[in-house]
Order: sequence, then C-alpha cells, then structure tokens
Amino acid sequence: MLIKELLRDGYAKRLYSTDDPDYVVIQYKDTISAYHGVKKANIPNKGVWVNKISEYIFLHLEKEGIKTIFAKSLDEHNQLCKNVTIFPLEFMIRNVIAGSLSLMLDLEEGIRPESPIFEIYIKNHNISKTLINDDHAVALQLINHEDLNEIHKKTLKINQIICDLFDEVGIDVINIKMEFGYDKDHNLVLADEISPDSCRFWDKQTKKRLDRDRFKRELGMVEESYREVWERLTSRNNK
Amino acid sequence: MLIKELLRDGYAKRLYSTDDPDYVVIQYKDTISAYHGVKKANIPNKGVWVNKISEYIFLHLEKEGIKTIFAKSLDEHNQLCKNVTIFPLEFMIRNVIAGSLSLMLDLEEGIRPESPIFEIYIKNHNISKTLINDDHAVALQLINHEDLNEIHKKTLKINQIICDLFDEVGIDVINIKMEFGYDKDHNLVLADEISPDSCRFWDKQTKKRLDRDRFKRELGMVEESYREVWERLTSRNNK
Repeated sequence: MLIKELLRDGYAKRLYSTDDPDYVVIQYKDTISAYHGVKKANIPNKGVWVNKISEYIFLHLEKEGIKTIFAKSLDEHNQLCKNVTIFPLEFMIRNVIAGSLSLMLDLEEGIRPESPIFEIYIKNHNISKTLINDDHAVALQLINHEDLNEIHKKTLKINQIICDLFDEVGIDVINIKMEFGYDKDHNLVLADEISPDSCRFWDKQTKKRLDRDRFKRELGMVEESYREVWERLTSRNNK
Repeated sequence: MLIKELLRDGYAKRLYSTDDPDYVVIQYKDTISAYHGVKKANIPNKGVWVNKISEYIFLHLEKEGIKTIFAKSLDEHNQLCKNVTIFPLEFMIRNVIAGSLSLMLDLEEGIRPESPIFEIYIKNHNISKTLINDDHAVALQLINHEDLNEIHKKTLKINQIICDLFDEVGIDVINIKMEFGYDKDHNLVLADEISPDSCRFWDKQTKKRLDRDRFKRELGMVEESYREVWERLTSRNNK
C-alpha cells in the first residue's frame, strides 16, 4: 500500500492517506508534548513504544470482541489503520482521580471512586480541551444521544478489558482516553491510540508513574517507563 | 412562627431557622451581585420583586403537581418555606445558549438547541461554580444516580411548565437554575428560588433582557425589569 498525502501533523503523530481510501497510516513520532503544546521535547524511541503498546492493546481488544481501527503493523513507527469517520470528541474513563480532575474537584490524586467516571471533551478554539456533558455534545450537533449511549457502554467495557490486562502485569489503569468513529460498513470502531501518551498508568505497588506525566511533571526516565509498559505487557506471552 | 437564628447570609438572601424545625424563613435582600460577589450593588425593592416572582412561580408549579418548599408569604421580603435537606448542587436547564455556555462552546448567544440542555454545577473552593457531570457528582458522594435521574426528569418537567407560563406573557425562558432537597416525609422538593436573579428571561419580541444580566452587563433599569416580569405574570390573572 502506498502512502499518498499527509492529512494531519499532530503533536505526537502524523496521519497519512494511502492509495486505498479505506485505509490510513498512523505514524507515531518521537516528539512529546504537554499543556497543549506549550511544553515540547524529543524523546528518542518514544514513538516506537507508543506504536507497539497501542498495537498490543488493540489486538488484545479485538480478541475480546471490540472492533478497532488497527489493521497491520508496518514498521517501528507506522501502523496501517482503517479509515473511519471520527467523532470530534474525546471520551475519558477515570478509574482513579488524577491530573486535571483532581484540581477541578479538589480531591487528592489516588482516590478511587466506587465506579469509573465517564467524561466527554471537545477541543475548543484549537487551544484547550473542554469538559462538556452529553447534552452539550448533542446541541453542538457533534453526535446523537443513541451513539453517545453506545459509546458510553463501549468505553466501560473496553476499560474493564484493559484493567484486567494491566492487572496481570502489576499496573493500575488510572484513566484512558478513547476516540471512536464509524468505518465504511457502519461499525462503531475504537480509533486513535491507547498508550502512555494518552492514558495514566501507575505501578500497582510503588505508584510509580509509567506515562506522559513523567514528562509533564519533569520526573525523568520517560522512554524507559514507556519501554517498561511494553516489556511488562509482552512478558504475559512468556508465561 | 418565630424567627430563631440566622443560618446563612448569602449575596442575595438570608436563611433563618424558626421555632418549628420543619420550617425556615427565606429573606430576599435588595442587594445584587455578579461574578461571585466581585461586583455588588444595592437595588431598592429588588428583593421584593424576587420574593413575589418566586412565590408566583412556585404556587403555579404546585398547582401543576410539582412539590416545592414554598409554604406562605410573610411580608414583602420574607417567605416561610419547608426545611429540606438540600443537595449541594445546582441544576441548570438551558433552552437557549447564553452567558458562560456561549463562551465555553464558542456559540453565539440566542441559538436554540433542538432540546433543552441539562447541567450540573458544584460550588468549588467557595469561589466559583464548576460544571461537572453525573458521574462526578456521584463520585463526590453528593448524590446517587437514582436521585439524579429523578431530578433530571423533574427539571425538564418544571422547565416546560415555566416556559408555557412565561410564553403567555411574551417572555422567553432562556435558562433556569434549580435546587432540590428532601423534606421530612422524603418527598423530592424544588428548593431555593426561581426568579430573574437565578434565571435568564428575554422579551420574546425585542429580546430585551429582564434579569440579572441587566446588572452584570451594566444595562441599567434593573429594578424596573424585575418589576416588569412581576407585572406581566400577574396580568395573566386579569384576563
């Protein structure tokens, strides 16, 4: 399959069209950013681990009956994905209070609510992410209530599968960001990525952060922590 | 009934206990405020109109089968109300985009979404109101999902009744803030007030604002506009 055109050049990945309109290529870059691009750096190999981890998780989800965009690994930085019509919304499941929600609700990081929290965000004014609710999303004509309910259920199911997966390798899944779209056959499909760039993962015992917070909060060992997530996940296969 | 103790002294009203633990007195003050108390003023008689308008609306809602805290008018500034255990949340129904939501969603004021928008706010850090969603409210242990669903349905019903009422007198109901609590018999009851202090009301024809925005936005004629709402509502009774 031939790469045709750069469709989007984001902070951490590039999206290309291919000669087959049903497929795109996602390229995971080694650049990392925080605070909506205000803080940036290059972390050699970061994109490799994100690519591998997201592929690993998407393949695991597919085995569990969840449809995803992942089609095929191309090389260390690139994966072939189904082309989907994406909802311009980000969906977040939070199992543990951390980050922006800790500030917003004035709750300490690490508190685990009785059940997972579902959130919807829009990218606003191209500057910051804004928390909205389901009625806002529908009023903005970005989605309808039926699709929202379907996605809500799906995020909880995906969250459970990923929590179980990471539990096996001693990692707590703090929060997961998800995006969804419709493929050409009108299947609701998990899009984007699931990785330490878009989620929070903490070591179960030590609470050591194994995600982008290492960069945001100047904790160091960013590449090593991403690699650790990858190595722990693949250690499952040797058991 | 005897007033006993000042329980709360807010920006626009005072709450007193009485010698009957099942009842409180709400006193509507002539002070008006905006931006969480940063901007303040005294508008003679403002409290009188708020008291009368809220009473009028609550009595109308009672006739339509909605339980409210309103018990009895005491005088121009004071009303006797049922004592309820209030949920520490504010519920907002928005029929038309205006104010903070216009900024947040980057939509022009005056746009009417296909169906009303339901919102939940908490008062955070005693400084500002914060938009949250239902999962946040439950995670904070401020309410359970059952009560939230019940309140959601009730806000929509109350909104419809008030829209119909105001439609008769040529006023568009832009948004309504509501609070709820449980009375001693465990009835879910509409609490607080419904007035130009807590809602947005626009003249249907001219779009003239008949609410607290007149003060917030320095439009003048605050007292006259509140009185106009009262006069229009009571003109129904002469038809």
